[in-house]
Amino acid sequence: MLSNHLQNGFETAKMVWSRLPNAEEGDHEDTGHLRKSDGSGVESLEYEVVENHAYWEEQEQRGKLFVGYYVVVKWFFALLIGIGTGLAAVFINLSVENFAGWKFALTFSIIQKSYVAGFIVYVLINLVLVLSSVYIITQFAPAAAGSGIPEIKGYLNGVDIHGVLLFRTLIGKIFGSIGSVGGGLALGKEGPLVHTGACIASLLGQGGSTKYHLSSRWLQVFKSDRDRRDLVTCGCAAGVAAAFRAPVGGVLFALEEVTSWWRSQLMWRVFFTSAIVAVVVRTAMGWCKNGNCGHFGSGGFIIWDTSDGQEDYSFEELLPMAVIGVIGGLLGALFNQLTLYISYWRRNHLHKRGNRVKIIEACLVSLITSFISFGLPLLRKCSTCPEADPDSGIECPRPPGMYGNYVNFYCSKEKEYNDLATIFFNSQDDAIRNLFSAKTVHEFSAQSLLTFLVMFYALAVVTFGTAVPAGQFVPGIMIGSTYGRLVGMFVVNFYKKPNIEEGTYALLGAASFLGGSMRMTVSLCVIMVEITNNLKLLPLIMLVLLISKAVGDAFNEGLYEEQARLRGIPLLESKPKYQMRKMTAKDTSGQRVVSFPRVVKVADVVSILRSNSHNGFPVIDHTRTGETLVIGLVLRSHLLVLLQSKVDFQHSPLPCDPRPGSRPIRHTPSEFVKPASSKGMSIHDIQLSPDDLEMYIDLAPFLNPSPYIVPEDMSLTKVYNLFRQLGLRHIFVVPRPSRVIGLITRKDLLIEDNEESDTVELQSTSNSAR
Amino acid sequence: MLSNHLQNGFETAKMVWSRLPNAEEGDHEDTGHLRKSDGSGVESLEYEVVENHAYWEEQEQRGKLFVGYYVVVKWFFALLIGIGTGLAAVFINLSVENFAGWKFALTFSIIQKSYVAGFIVYVLINLVLVLSSVYIITQFAPAAAGSGIPEIKGYLNGVDIHGVLLFRTLIGKIFGSIGSVGGGLALGKEGPLVHTGACIASLLGQGGSTKYHLSSRWLQVFKSDRDRRDLVTCGCAAGVAAAFRAPVGGVLFALEEVTSWWRSQLMWRVFFTSAIVAVVVRTAMGWCKNGNCGHFGSGGFIIWDTSDGQEDYSFEELLPMAVIGVIGGLLGALFNQLTLYISYWRRNHLHKRGNRVKIIEACLVSLITSFISFGLPLLRKCSTCPEADPDSGIECPRPPGMYGNYVNFYCSKEKEYNDLATIFFNSQDDAIRNLFSAKTVHEFSAQSLLTFLVMFYALAVVTFGTAVPAGQFVPGIMIGSTYGRLVGMFVVNFYKKPNIEEGTYALLGAASFLGGSMRMTVSLCVIMVEITNNLKLLPLIMLVLLISKAVGDAFNEGLYEEQARLRGIPLLESKPKYQMRKMTAKDTSGQRVVSFPRVVKVADVVSILRSNSHNGFPVIDHTRTGETLVIGLVLRSHLLVLLQSKVDFQHSPLPCDPRPGSRPIRHTPSEFVKPASSKGMSIHDIQLSPDDLEMYIDLAPFLNPSPYIVPEDMSLTKVYNLFRQLGLRHIFVVPRPSRVIGLITRKDLLIEDNEESDTVELQSTSNSAR
Repeated sequence: MLSNHLQNGFETAKMVWSRLPNAEEGDHEDTGHLRKSDGSGVESLEYEVVENHAYWEEQEQRGKLFVGYYVVVKWFFALLIGIGTGLAAVFINLSVENFAGWKFALTFSIIQKSYVAGFIVYVLINLVLVLSSVYIITQFAPAAAGSGIPEIKGYLNGVDIHGVLLFRTLIGKIFGSIGSVGGGLALGKEGPLVHTGACIASLLGQGGSTKYHLSSRWLQVFKSDRDRRDLVTCGCAAGVAAAFRAPVGGVLFALEEVTSWWRSQLMWRVFFTSAIVAVVVRTAMGWCKNGNCGHFGSGGFIIWDTSDGQEDYSFEELLPMAVIGVIGGLLGALFNQLTLYISYWRRNHLHKRGNRVKIIEACLVSLITSFISFGLPLLRKCSTCPEADPDSGIECPRPPGMYGNYVNFYCSKEKEYNDLATIFFNSQDDAIRNLFSAKTVHEFSAQSLLTFLVMFYALAVVTFGTAVPAGQFVPGIMIGSTYGRLVGMFVVNFYKKPNIEEGTYALLGAASFLGGSMRMTVSLCVIMVEITNNLKLLPLIMLVLLISKAVGDAFNEGLYEEQARLRGIPLLESKPKYQMRKMTAKDTSGQRVVSFPRVVKVADVVSILRSNSHNGFPVIDHTRTGETLVIGLVLRSHLLVLLQSKVDFQHSPLPCDPRPGSRPIRHTPSEFVKPASSKGMSIHDIQLSPDDLEMYIDLAPFLNPSPYIVPEDMSLTKVYNLFRQLGLRHIFVVPRPSRVIGLITRKDLLIEDNEESDTVELQSTSNSAR
Repeated sequence: MLSNHLQNGFETAKMVWSRLPNAEEGDHEDTGHLRKSDGSGVESLEYEVVENHAYWEEQEQRGKLFVGYYVVVKWFFALLIGIGTGLAAVFINLSVENFAGWKFALTFSIIQKSYVAGFIVYVLINLVLVLSSVYIITQFAPAAAGSGIPEIKGYLNGVDIHGVLLFRTLIGKIFGSIGSVGGGLALGKEGPLVHTGACIASLLGQGGSTKYHLSSRWLQVFKSDRDRRDLVTCGCAAGVAAAFRAPVGGVLFALEEVTSWWRSQLMWRVFFTSAIVAVVVRTAMGWCKNGNCGHFGSGGFIIWDTSDGQEDYSFEELLPMAVIGVIGGLLGALFNQLTLYISYWRRNHLHKRGNRVKIIEACLVSLITSFISFGLPLLRKCSTCPEADPDSGIECPRPPGMYGNYVNFYCSKEKEYNDLATIFFNSQDDAIRNLFSAKTVHEFSAQSLLTFLVMFYALAVVTFGTAVPAGQFVPGIMIGSTYGRLVGMFVVNFYKKPNIEEGTYALLGAASFLGGSMRMTVSLCVIMVEITNNLKLLPLIMLVLLISKAVGDAFNEGLYEEQARLRGIPLLESKPKYQMRKMTAKDTSGQRVVSFPRVVKVADVVSILRSNSHNGFPVIDHTRTGETLVIGLVLRSHLLVLLQSKVDFQHSPLPCDPRPGSRPIRHTPSEFVKPASSKGMSIHDIQLSPDDLEMYIDLAPFLNPSPYIVPEDMSLTKVYNLFRQLGLRHIFVVPRPSRVIGLITRKDLLIEDNEESDTVELQSTSNSAR
């Protein structure tokens, strides 16, 4: 009887565990693991299965239907994520463009009469917008500050940070972005859009059950961590696709930068989501072309078309381009380092003092930004317009109230423009467009570009880390294209070839700075190509990125990795550390292992859970012959649910009978679901009466019957690879085995769909008939 | 003493195994695993290490230098692969373009006088070229037939096929491609270029030692399977980058289609290789622009520029585009099925009869192709040239000896052209350029396109599988763009909008057919964009690909998977099969496990190796208390090396003393290297004297001390994930463990570089001082 109960425990465990949420990566596939196995080296197993045959059949049936339903829901969610993120992006862009458009239009109309009044209006509008943003963040959605990419990266690496994927974070992110970007701060709306996409995806994956009253059985499919991760990956891709109108770039960004686990099936779904985003955004822009969207449409979604740029390049130009790469690497690494220091200082000194300090800080930054962007161009002498080239279609100065190059600002004569105002006193999109623009040689003086570079770099560093949603893409492009254009001016003067365009160098500069700071390669390359609509420069962008990433890597890690580390998000890199080669599994798992017996007294559970902070515990049972046997892993979170609900408490210290029908399992899997981004329960929250404490729980139905195991003297690199590649949470370190029962090779795992299915059926039937 | 020998055995094993080649994925990281571990639950370990301290130190030192050297060599090889593949691509393209150019120029000049003479010359030139190709393949490099992509895919999935990556295969591939593509068969040179790149990479990785007399220690780094796989991945990307001038497409192709394991570090290196290829190809093309390359330069590397194509699309057009997707899925799936049947039939009936049959078959196919491509246009009535549009720059008919639209072939009047000849009697590049061309509405009649579609589809199916190097990209594009253009013609007639271009529909058709046949998504999308230099169509290409892949997937697997299966290459897909959910590890490993004791008689080794065909064997030893203990895995290939060299034979049945210095390990790791693509040794090749058979081998230094293990009742899906994700060859199925020594979680694996290195040092010192 005792050996039976052990075996039965395994079976029940498999049956139930497979339906439990929070199953680890590999475990998810267990769904439908319902056949009786010979299991566990335990002696006899004469218990009846025949009586339950119908039950298994039904489960089997449901399993297949379920898989079909699961696939449909997955794709439907991918569609919804695409539509949702696309609409969010449209809304943000529309709002930002309108706020910024009104702001500049108003300011320009006022400065026709008085520069002082214009300045005051300009500063006030910016201040109000930034204040609204920082107010939303501090009062309502603190997790929405910053770009959110390090947090999402952490989530996809397996670290759940409280609050990152909540509905309020989504709302805070959307409205906060509008305020901070519209308010003219030195930050972008692209990073936040990635976070927005991830939030939408996560909410779709879990929110259905609580908000839209779909039955929990319907959405049971999305309770596993892996499914949620997949959805969030789709959301990230959708975010990038929407931010830059770069669908392929979005897929690659999700692949290269964000995810830690990647499967080709997922790529296909991410691709679909990105395509949907492209369609949604395109539709919205088509609608706005008819003038329905106010100021939106003249600027709007990022496409800085440089397709009329440089056609060809000579080998001598590779040298200045390499120089751009080196500058990008240096400035990018410096940016990472400076922001790291400032964030560290902010976290430890400034932001501890509460929300009021955060608000004051953001307002101060806004004031400084407004002062500089309005004041500096005032100090700059205006330049005479170049001779008009009717082919290029570029007017100088640009007509009032329009977007374009050659801004007339504080100029005494009519045919003059202020080159500093052209980049500084302009919306970011337009400034970049001007910097990238071809056929505008000598538009900018080196002095103005240098001034802008220094000031904007400083602003970007200071702004990074204020309590507003903030992306680093657009500021990075601004900084990069400025020094790129500087190098370009030098090249134009030095090589004196007619086909060299400063705008092309600006583009390469932008790529180099992003490469030096974020250290992306393929995805950044594709994004740059997609946003500039120019494929010819691809090899040059690749070259510049290679150099800038290599230079940057010599100094520090990428921006997101640095920030993730600062925020205490323990990312597991794909490569094990060098010193792991010299360590074994046993060296690492130094902590004392706390294990549970199969049937455990409630009081013991409580005291064990209180005595440590482990999240998983081995469960040990005894065979008839008295040997101990590890029967599985039980999670703290599941124990807490059991303690709280109390329905599975029993009076007897003997194992419950796990046969279906004899004693139903009282928990539905959905009860074990931990909501995303929540802190979960704590043992201290649970109140138990003295009577409860005297009762017992049989853990068998609630454990993971076969967690991955490694022998104690396995090299830690191998353990790391196992942990990282499969996305695990717990690995058991066990003694070296005494015998080998079987050896699995490639051909054992090649099961043909058609031929073998009969054999499998046969096998399972013969088993059940025993 | 006995317990010591066991412990010592582990240590030596770790030390040596880490330097052995063919170590599995995870094992590679063991390099430098030299610290004494407490290992294996064996009782005491009081043996002296202090005396060897200098030795460990030196190893340690070497380890760090080695890692630096390793990185440099890796990048240097990536550079060489890029240059090599780029040059090979240039050579192939140059040759093909020149042969094809001469052929058409000669034929056109002869048919001015006599169509019969022209026909004979045309047929003969084609025949000679194809004959040369098939002769090279059958006599010299049989593994170079076909595209090679299924084989490379297999290699990267872990299946080494004899002959695929040899030097002769490389040579055969290059020259065979020139013959088969130059000879006008319905096949492309792009797939073979992928294989070429992979061959170059593999030869670089292993060939140095045998061919260029570099010391084996220098190239020791590249003896592991994983390093070779990485190089081959770079080679594949380089091949695609060179074939299509699509560097990003190459990276994605390698990622999506070819590799089975992917790490972000590798992406970075693959990216570098692709960038190098782009530079090499561009340089060569720049050089050819000056007329140094004969007929090359007018056609040449694939860039079918459609950037002057359709600017915009309306929503009504999405329907015909979806139709194109469906057609692509259907025709692609049909193509896969037909080629599968024909390949099957060929393999089992035709090619069994020897090389002569293969040669005759290829010549027949060449004759048929020549007849059809020359004869069918003769039957077609010529059309009158459309009114000249001076803006488009397209002349009608094209000037003799030039490339372009509107081929005058067998036309009675001067201002006429033959639309069937324009696509059929032309080099493939030019035919596709004509099909993609914008501003040429009504150039082709529906009848001609339909004729071409049917005939070319049939030719492509028949040609597939002949014994010549053959890619399916270009034929796929030909087929797809033909029906795409047909749909486009219908749309132009039906919607009557001025901005609709038939060429755009042809492009979408090409994408749809490739998607329906090869089932790639992101990489194909990027390749299509890169070769047509048109980003505007990206969302449409995505849409069409989504549909065609979905339709195709409903019928069968992708072309490469089907072919791989036909060729008996057992690819492990990334997803476990559904029925695995119901199976356990024990169910699968049904075969009897054959294990070795630690010290084994040579005669026993021979008889065991002869009695089965397993490639790995557990090694079992006894502790002092008489318990058995699994001490590791020994590979058949390593045993064969030991048997052949005989240097490690010993007279005593006692374990050898593994302490360094006391008895040197006589094998250098390079002796265990199995050359890529070779069949390796067989037990039947090894001759042993009766004296030898009476001797013993101590296996401890040659085994992998900790292969991955799974408990016997683990779900097979979990086992599959472990096997597949880590790229293993063997997994031990062991009994359920009796106790848990430790539990490894995320935070145990987070070792900081800076803080912890001291601790590790300390630990290792204290250990050695024991």
